[in-house]
Amino acid sequence: MARALDVVRSKSALLILREAFYGTTRFDDFAQRTGISEPVTAARLAELVEDGLLAKQPYREPGQRTRLAYLLTDKGAELFPVLVALMEWGDRWLAPDGAPVVLTHRDCGEPVHIELRCAAGHEASVEELDLTVGPGRQASSA
Amino acid sequence: MARALDVVRSKSALLILREAFYGTTRFDDFAQRTGISEPVTAARLAELVEDGLLAKQPYREPGQRTRLAYLLTDKGAELFPVLVALMEWGDRWLAPDGAPVVLTHRDCGEPVHIELRCAAGHEASVEELDLTVGPGRQASSA
Repeated sequence: MARALDVVRSKSALLILREAFYGTTRFDDFAQRTGISEPVTAARLAELVEDGLLAKQPYREPGQRTRLAYLLTDKGAELFPVLVALMEWGDRWLAPDGAPVVLTHRDCGEPVHIELRCAAGHEASVEELDLTVGPGRQASSA
Repeated sequence: MARALDVVRSKSALLILREAFYGTTRFDDFAQRTGISEPVTAARLAELVEDGLLAKQPYREPGQRTRLAYLLTDKGAELFPVLVALMEWGDRWLAPDGAPVVLTHRDCGEPVHIELRCAAGHEASVEELDLTVGPGRQASSA
């Protein structure tokens, strides 16, 4: 987990990733929608590309110069549950006026939540979990 | 989500929370097990108490002076899915030697994972989600 935190370095990185999940791909839109300054947005986008969470792809609209789109990679897309878990916690504990963003399942329209579930199909509460140190464990490395 | 990130301010805060989930309650143990310096550990513990994620509880062992234990509150305990989601992502993308920490369901021993699931019981992949802006949405406030 510590290594994961090194990659997701900062609040601004997570805000940019959230916008990428919302479908944002262009530099100007990232800066405007996150409210992060352009220099910081540029630095974060470069780090997220370097870490393999976003990939740059050139595009050109008619009559315009070539620009770069920033697209989520698989590695970046799989961070989505982290953002959802943070959103749910924030909605519950910090947003008295209701959830700012609602997630629904496209097929059936039902609200989507994050769950801890075991391979036997049981939903598992925090109190029902055991933690075991595996082979890769080192001090502060999980 | 931005507000949630303000509370979970830093990597050191999340490392301390992780140790709290592992059962750590004492200042010395937090500092030693996280590898964070004592002054920073003290500052983070104070912030986590101020934000309501940990609660201080005095305890005294025979022949010793009274000390403080730091216990997870409900608000703190409910951050666990965030840490699990981060751990799973880190295990998959950053830990080639296997998962450093394994979570199992105490009742049945099966491994536990984080899932996105809708109220109708379907597991939902990232591609199957719709995001809707709810009533509490403001710029950068989710």
